[in-house]
Amino acid sequence: MALPVSCAADLTSFMYGRYTQELGVYAKEEAARLRESGQRRSVSDRSRTLDLLEYDKGRCAKCRICTVRCQKFLISRVGEDWIFLILLGLLMALVSWVVDFCIAICLQAQKWMYGGLDSNVFLQYLAWVTYPVVLITFSAGFTQILAPQAVGSGIPEMKTILRGVVLKEYLTFKTFVAKVIGLTCALGSGMPLGKEGPFVHIASLCAALLSKFMSLFGGIYENESRNIEMLAAACAVGVGCCFAAPIGGVLFSIEVTSTFFAVRNYWRGFFAATFSAFIFRVLAVWNRDEETITALFKTRFRLDFPFDLQELPAFAVIGIASGFGGALFVYLNRLIVQFIRKQKAINRFLMKKRLLYPALVTLLVSTLTFPPGFGQFMAGKLTQKESLVTLLDNRTWAKQGIAEEFDYIGHSQAWKHPQVNVFVTLVLFIVMKFWMSALATTIPVPCGAFMPVFVIGAAFGRLVGESMAAWFPDGINTDGTIYPIVPGGYAVVGAAALSGAVTHTVSTAVIVFELTGQISHILPVMIAVILANAVAQSLQPSLYDSIIRIKKLPYLPELGWGHHEYYNIRVEDIMVRDVRYITLNCCYRDLHNVLLTGHLKTLALVESAESMILLGSIERAQLQSLLSQQLGRPRRLEYIRERALAEKKRMSVVSNPGSEDGSQRVSQEVRFQVRGHCTFVPPLVSSSSVMFISHPQLSPPLCVLQIAEWEEMQLDEQVNFNNCKIDPAPFQLVERTSLHKTHTIFSLLGLDHAYVTSIGRLIGVVSLKELRKAIEGSVTVKGVKVRPPLASFRDSGTSSSENEATELHKLWDRHKSMSLPREHTPSESDEKSQ
Amino acid sequence: MALPVSCAADLTSFMYGRYTQELGVYAKEEAARLRESGQRRSVSDRSRTLDLLEYDKGRCAKCRICTVRCQKFLISRVGEDWIFLILLGLLMALVSWVVDFCIAICLQAQKWMYGGLDSNVFLQYLAWVTYPVVLITFSAGFTQILAPQAVGSGIPEMKTILRGVVLKEYLTFKTFVAKVIGLTCALGSGMPLGKEGPFVHIASLCAALLSKFMSLFGGIYENESRNIEMLAAACAVGVGCCFAAPIGGVLFSIEVTSTFFAVRNYWRGFFAATFSAFIFRVLAVWNRDEETITALFKTRFRLDFPFDLQELPAFAVIGIASGFGGALFVYLNRLIVQFIRKQKAINRFLMKKRLLYPALVTLLVSTLTFPPGFGQFMAGKLTQKESLVTLLDNRTWAKQGIAEEFDYIGHSQAWKHPQVNVFVTLVLFIVMKFWMSALATTIPVPCGAFMPVFVIGAAFGRLVGESMAAWFPDGINTDGTIYPIVPGGYAVVGAAALSGAVTHTVSTAVIVFELTGQISHILPVMIAVILANAVAQSLQPSLYDSIIRIKKLPYLPELGWGHHEYYNIRVEDIMVRDVRYITLNCCYRDLHNVLLTGHLKTLALVESAESMILLGSIERAQLQSLLSQQLGRPRRLEYIRERALAEKKRMSVVSNPGSEDGSQRVSQEVRFQVRGHCTFVPPLVSSSSVMFISHPQLSPPLCVLQIAEWEEMQLDEQVNFNNCKIDPAPFQLVERTSLHKTHTIFSLLGLDHAYVTSIGRLIGVVSLKELRKAIEGSVTVKGVKVRPPLASFRDSGTSSSENEATELHKLWDRHKSMSLPREHTPSESDEKSQ
Repeated sequence: MALPVSCAADLTSFMYGRYTQELGVYAKEEAARLRESGQRRSVSDRSRTLDLLEYDKGRCAKCRICTVRCQKFLISRVGEDWIFLILLGLLMALVSWVVDFCIAICLQAQKWMYGGLDSNVFLQYLAWVTYPVVLITFSAGFTQILAPQAVGSGIPEMKTILRGVVLKEYLTFKTFVAKVIGLTCALGSGMPLGKEGPFVHIASLCAALLSKFMSLFGGIYENESRNIEMLAAACAVGVGCCFAAPIGGVLFSIEVTSTFFAVRNYWRGFFAATFSAFIFRVLAVWNRDEETITALFKTRFRLDFPFDLQELPAFAVIGIASGFGGALFVYLNRLIVQFIRKQKAINRFLMKKRLLYPALVTLLVSTLTFPPGFGQFMAGKLTQKESLVTLLDNRTWAKQGIAEEFDYIGHSQAWKHPQVNVFVTLVLFIVMKFWMSALATTIPVPCGAFMPVFVIGAAFGRLVGESMAAWFPDGINTDGTIYPIVPGGYAVVGAAALSGAVTHTVSTAVIVFELTGQISHILPVMIAVILANAVAQSLQPSLYDSIIRIKKLPYLPELGWGHHEYYNIRVEDIMVRDVRYITLNCCYRDLHNVLLTGHLKTLALVESAESMILLGSIERAQLQSLLSQQLGRPRRLEYIRERALAEKKRMSVVSNPGSEDGSQRVSQEVRFQVRGHCTFVPPLVSSSSVMFISHPQLSPPLCVLQIAEWEEMQLDEQVNFNNCKIDPAPFQLVERTSLHKTHTIFSLLGLDHAYVTSIGRLIGVVSLKELRKAIEGSVTVKGVKVRPPLASFRDSGTSSSENEATELHKLWDRHKSMSLPREHTPSESDEKSQ
Repeated sequence: MALPVSCAADLTSFMYGRYTQELGVYAKEEAARLRESGQRRSVSDRSRTLDLLEYDKGRCAKCRICTVRCQKFLISRVGEDWIFLILLGLLMALVSWVVDFCIAICLQAQKWMYGGLDSNVFLQYLAWVTYPVVLITFSAGFTQILAPQAVGSGIPEMKTILRGVVLKEYLTFKTFVAKVIGLTCALGSGMPLGKEGPFVHIASLCAALLSKFMSLFGGIYENESRNIEMLAAACAVGVGCCFAAPIGGVLFSIEVTSTFFAVRNYWRGFFAATFSAFIFRVLAVWNRDEETITALFKTRFRLDFPFDLQELPAFAVIGIASGFGGALFVYLNRLIVQFIRKQKAINRFLMKKRLLYPALVTLLVSTLTFPPGFGQFMAGKLTQKESLVTLLDNRTWAKQGIAEEFDYIGHSQAWKHPQVNVFVTLVLFIVMKFWMSALATTIPVPCGAFMPVFVIGAAFGRLVGESMAAWFPDGINTDGTIYPIVPGGYAVVGAAALSGAVTHTVSTAVIVFELTGQISHILPVMIAVILANAVAQSLQPSLYDSIIRIKKLPYLPELGWGHHEYYNIRVEDIMVRDVRYITLNCCYRDLHNVLLTGHLKTLALVESAESMILLGSIERAQLQSLLSQQLGRPRRLEYIRERALAEKKRMSVVSNPGSEDGSQRVSQEVRFQVRGHCTFVPPLVSSSSVMFISHPQLSPPLCVLQIAEWEEMQLDEQVNFNNCKIDPAPFQLVERTSLHKTHTIFSLLGLDHAYVTSIGRLIGVVSLKELRKAIEGSVTVKGVKVRPPLASFRDSGTSSSENEATELHKLWDRHKSMSLPREHTPSESDEKSQ
């Protein structure tokens, strides 16, 4: 029984609850459509202009033709990858240079204040302490207010994003601003913080924003896999322009962010990082800081005999000790975070005064480094950069001993103390900086830990080198020629080893070569880095993985090195056997039950409960929309209308008024019913229960009963999957697939879950969570079959078929806005944030 | 009707055709079983010995307990990855050092001969020419006889193997011996050949052999994915120990062999390559060649001002020119191979005299480099290593001009010619070496092209550098201080750029830093390498990809850089829609038809022809074995026996002799029938037709008819898939999957083919071949739907589920040995070769 069209349209406009809520979505879509058609029109306009111009004969017209053509050509070229990469490199070089410049000014200002007040120690102390406290507090507050996502390193988040998980708000313009300004202030304070991690994040932000900007000119900037590739290149750019180390940057970013790396992206990374590093260093030359392009921390070790073969054990010792030190650093960092979190009292207090914790930490650290105070024993007045330069110095400090006069120029004097041996200074520096860095990196400001760790490692290497130099004043070589030991070389080795241990990377070796501009110590560095990694990896996760765990980001742990049991555990040992599924011939009631009992993102669709042949998977959102189509407001209204018409017909037998006027009245009656009566319909589909909750008093029991009856009827109908988006090829594994292979496939394809099938029959499901548990527990379960408690596979994370299901997402978004507020999952689309 | 057991057993032993052929397989299996149980026994023996020994109280016994325990511990440790990697590194360092040593001796011998005969130019020429001809001919002959797989670089083959394809005979001991000895002789001849590519192959051979050797001690050395990981590490070791460049080695091997790289393997590669490079250089120190561990081609450029910013355009020019040069080299190399192949007459002649081609090429090249002849104009008397050392020299040659006296020491004198300018010498060197290298690398000996190209690049860089030095005698810098131009730095840039262009890698930049021990020219090198790559990649495939195409190895081309259409082409545009499938309820006749009409390695199994729901895939071998079980010899014999018995029964009604004697006689009759009569059975199953072909004269038509009738009956039966190995989760794609994603998935998982499904229904199949065509043709097909001719997906290559189907392989192997000789596919199991 069809309603008059006008009436139906009228009804729609009256359902204001839905209408107003959907308005935003509609408006957005409409705007997008208009913009798009506008673009198209402007393009066609332009080409028409061109055609017209060609008929014009004037000289000016020729110029204009040329201009328009150039413009056209440029726009067509804008889509090319290399333009994007060059722009990205240029932008990041500028950002890096400006940030460095501002940091240098901030640090200079502190020195100037401190130097100007040398008449009064107390005033000096006040200036020394207040300045960083103010900067850090500002940074923390600014970040907190503008974009809390900008806090911390950013590498863990980038790792998660490159794994395929969409993290909300992590790639927005707000975050960019917060990160850049927060980072500048934080580093300008002189605290032991680094800029590397944040720069990875900033570069990714740049890439994301640039991508969005360039998509205005057309091209394929919306493709998901392309974006991921560009983000990978951006990570390389971040490290590259931070240290002017293109090769190390590419490798470090690969090691830190990827599990599997597409070699074709390698090229992109090298290109952008090289360009960025080049511009970054050229800016320094143009600014008259440097005469030509050289390394950031240039060393001048001798080339002919960099080290003796017999020094290698000392380098190995540095490596092993750095391994332990690196693991300790990660552990300490985590311990501090967990301690702060666990102490409820402290926590509550700190939560209330969010800026107190950064201020307190800064106060503590800067008090201890106050040069006339304790700082004199640990070269407290040196900035991070100055410390590194002095530590990599190619002269030996200890040979002259304490008593002799040091002929150091510039900053090296800070290491000299009239009463205290240089060894004591170094040890104090290492110990104090160690816990200070671990503490400082927990402050909620944009900051990294790489540079502080790098400096500590250099100091440790220097310590070993100076000891060796004191032990063998004439070098070890016995062949006649005296080659004194170069403690600066040890510092290089130590820096690479400790930073490698903390981050679990070997590419720090390459970074030190590029930073120092010398590769002569390649073998000691490689040996130390590898040993440090071997030790650290067996003790602790990397700093970034540790942060991922602390922040509970969705991740998949790496397979350890040499655990053979991964090859022996099968997927059937870890899979969840009680799979939630829906059958092709199920009715809406089954759908409803399945949706009520679980929180899965996707459900398996099987042919029938007997055959269990897997046909595909359906997203929860799809099912919800199916269900709400069946039971939702329009159909319910229609039903009520139908009933009302029937009623009316029945009534009209009794009294027969003017038909036209009457139908209108009836439809108004219906509307009244709609707005008032249906409040107590059991909210099977949450979307329909939002707007009526405010009129509970108007509810005749008849209507409720009728509606309930109708709903029961509707629920027994068979589901029609025709308009439903089904992923016809969800990832499938066989029960005999090894854990190793499963891990590989999950990492490679960024899967969230995979179905386990046996000749087409669904027999289980494996999700990230099971895999994680199996990997983490596998050392103890050798041979034992581990079956985690079932229904444990409801983790967040996007499905692998995301770009096949974009239309669906729109539907879902529209739908979601009407439903009850759901818990925030990190996999929610980023769209809404922009 | 069951036969007496003894009779059946008797029959089996009489089927000698089958028996003897299967004997090998049976013997092997039995031997394997025995060996395995023997191992187990020996292990248990050992532990029992230990237990017994502990009761013994003697002092000697304690020692023995200790020894046994140590042994036990060692054996348990042997399974660890790091032991394997250390052994691999050690072994390869030794191999590399020994090969280098032998090459040096060979080259010295040539020089000595040449030098000793300086009284007579003709004798000198004879010695100069004969020596390399003999060595190359020997190398070619030796390789040809022992293992033709050892010919060439080996990197293309390793790329294919790491892609997941099993190449027969490429990883055997024979190949190892042939490669090492062949390479030593080839390089000892002084021809412009390199050792890098072969070393990648040798390292992989080492890894494969070591793996096999270590598996004797137990552990998990048989796992396929582990072997692939170890091979990836081995490739890094190969480059690492060849150049003493661990970092560059790892990166180069990644770029050259992988499409997707697991970052966890990175570590392995670094570890093994560093250890290998370390040992390689330590050996040099121990041998008193070097004072300490330094770079292989150490340079001594100034550190403070390596280059001026204004020199960068010159470096960019080197990069771009190298790009064109690299593309030309690849083209030239391919052209020569194709020319030799196409010229039927030459080819036939050369094929007959296999060693003639190498000898002729060597004769030509060494005649041209004869120092008193043309060689004097191109520094012909220098070996490759000497040329490189002189080219990387940090002194300037051209500034003094021709007229002035060169104060060169040692080898640099070779570049000086009384009449000819040094520029002319350099140009001649570059041009001559260019085509010589391209020609020499086509000789069928184990050889690479990296080192010759590297030297040519260095010479080109030197040429540009010398020109710059002549142009700006006082350097470009205008700030007062004179920094003369360093042509050696240009040589470094040129070497990296040209080798990068030929191999399409950027990691040659890292290799030059490690080779020269200086990283001061990092930015020029990176810029030149990237430009060279950009140019070369847009003109030609890399040398290795070119060889892959020439050798027709199964490969998947890389996606180009910035071709957006890959995101727009869908899998439905390229898939083959006419899929060969079998249904679950098909009869043997269908199976037979499918097997006859196609040559697919795997077939899709669908539920029914109507529903087309994909249940899995079955290997061809499985189907063949199903078919032969149904129609094969045993069932056929059984049928004949049954018929004979029935006949006998009918007969025995007429005459009734002693039953026991009679049954024996009948069974012998049957045997006779079997051996004689069944010759003309249509050879549906080829395995049953091998042994009877020799008795065509004994064939009563009755038997044939009966058998044919029986076969028809058998073919109409429904197939029983119970005992058949089915891969229940073959890889599936959706029709909307983009070409880009498909390529990624294929590369990531090393797929051979993937089914395209739509809600569980099979609608198409995509194989490597379609993908290849689509990628190669995609530049022209933008928007156009390309559908290659169907049934074109029969390429070789193993399925991705190989390790799930090992039992099946055994069956198949057993079966194969009886069937008619098939064509050799490269994907055949490697087992038989050992």
